[in-house]
Amino acid sequence: MKLHLECIPCFIRQTLDSAKILELDDEIARTLLLRTLGLLSRLDWDLPAPVIGREIHRAIRELSGDPDPYLRRKISDTETALQLLPRVEQAVAESEYPFLTAVLYSIAGNAIDLAAKTGVEASAGAAFRSALDKPVDEAAVRRLERAVGEAGSVLFLADNAGEIVFDRPLLDRIGRDKVIVGVRGAPVINDATFDDARRSGITERFRVISNGSDTPGTWLNDCSREFVDQFERAALVIAKGQANYESLSDHPGRVAFLFLTKCAAVSEHLGVPTGSYVIREPRSS
Amino acid sequence: MKLHLECIPCFIRQTLDSAKILELDDEIARTLLLRTLGLLSRLDWDLPAPVIGREIHRAIRELSGDPDPYLRRKISDTETALQLLPRVEQAVAESEYPFLTAVLYSIAGNAIDLAAKTGVEASAGAAFRSALDKPVDEAAVRRLERAVGEAGSVLFLADNAGEIVFDRPLLDRIGRDKVIVGVRGAPVINDATFDDARRSGITERFRVISNGSDTPGTWLNDCSREFVDQFERAALVIAKGQANYESLSDHPGRVAFLFLTKCAAVSEHLGVPTGSYVIREPRSS
Repeated sequence: MKLHLECIPCFIRQTLDSAKILELDDEIARTLLLRTLGLLSRLDWDLPAPVIGREIHRAIRELSGDPDPYLRRKISDTETALQLLPRVEQAVAESEYPFLTAVLYSIAGNAIDLAAKTGVEASAGAAFRSALDKPVDEAAVRRLERAVGEAGSVLFLADNAGEIVFDRPLLDRIGRDKVIVGVRGAPVINDATFDDARRSGITERFRVISNGSDTPGTWLNDCSREFVDQFERAALVIAKGQANYESLSDHPGRVAFLFLTKCAAVSEHLGVPTGSYVIREPRSS
Repeated sequence: MKLHLECIPCFIRQTLDSAKILELDDEIARTLLLRTLGLLSRLDWDLPAPVIGREIHRAIRELSGDPDPYLRRKISDTETALQLLPRVEQAVAESEYPFLTAVLYSIAGNAIDLAAKTGVEASAGAAFRSALDKPVDEAAVRRLERAVGEAGSVLFLADNAGEIVFDRPLLDRIGRDKVIVGVRGAPVINDATFDDARRSGITERFRVISNGSDTPGTWLNDCSREFVDQFERAALVIAKGQANYESLSDHPGRVAFLFLTKCAAVSEHLGVPTGSYVIREPRSS
């Protein structure tokens, strides 16, 4: 999905929000804002939004002098999510349709996003409480379940720290034998890296591979050769989060998407209200 | 008042909103947005926001090929306000404190602003209905009335088309003999020009002078010599609207401000909630 005019105010918004969250001083915040403005004034409109996000967050890490500025927040979101996990697992186990309930908690976890300006509360607790409240396309879930059953291998592209804990029941249902979990190659915002997956108990249960990239999404041009090989070999890819949708939506076939829509541009693109649960199956093309 | 970090996303927002209101095609909207981004990336942070607004709206007029793109909207707001005027005048005449009621309608009219992103409905009808609902500093109104009484001459800086109609009862109470109404020198957004004052029945009742500038505010560096002379000679200046506050707040003495706060930057600066009625008397310094 290419850049939309509405992405521009959103990048500026994200830059200022990051400066606030990271308590950067005013001089650094201004420098950062000027960098973002300069970047945006030389924009390639054919790129997806997460590639611009990558540049903004590289500048944030450079100017803040912190290689992982959201680390504390990632750790605390992971801890909160881990405390909630037994209740999520119980809800899934007791559900009439466990795969559906696992999908719902996985998408609800996608609210734990420090980049988006949603009005959706970005905490693990809020994600847990609201997980079962949204309307969802149950037929799409059944088709996804069938696609998972038929696939010999599934590459599951995780999104954010904290969120990845809420993915665990779904990963269990896909099956430890066939799923590989892909994470970001380096810290960017609160996106889950290998370390975050480890803190979430994911690495001891599943095979986890880094994508070699610091793009907050999955931009294959930017990923390691090893990751791209896995991506191409997987019978099915399940991509979590809006940024993975933005960076992979034009990829032909085999990619399913699970996410919460977080902005007008993506919501309009899909014809749904902002804050919707999206379950998009692989395109047959 | 100097630029605030929060002005930056607001300029981008205004650029996109203008492109939408004026139904510019996507290619022009992108060019316009790139111009705004370029402008912002070379910012002089000591300028007040309306000077940047001037540049953005010059680009809008140039790229749209329309020297007065908000003309239709200005005419329709003026007509609506003129239809409401007899009821405003009646409310003022029947009020226990006519000067106060005239001030309230004048400030309420300040909601008719196509630049601001407020959540305040920007129509003349909404301005009329909500005029008397807001808390107001009555002691400040009494002091302003006294300052008006003591001043031999008053320069009243009008703000927007439509709004200027709601100023008429207050202008009447200041007095036709002592007030001069200042308007913008050329079209910019929906700011009132001489033509808009004429359409509002202001020119036939009051002496009206153009400030010679297309800044959406009053930036004296940009005003005609004749206007600056009037400004300096006036015993009291009453400036309507937030943009006049932003561009004149650092001016020493003799300037009173009447406006509705429309953004977090100005509201924080004044320590009031956004959407407040502000009555600021001349500084004694």
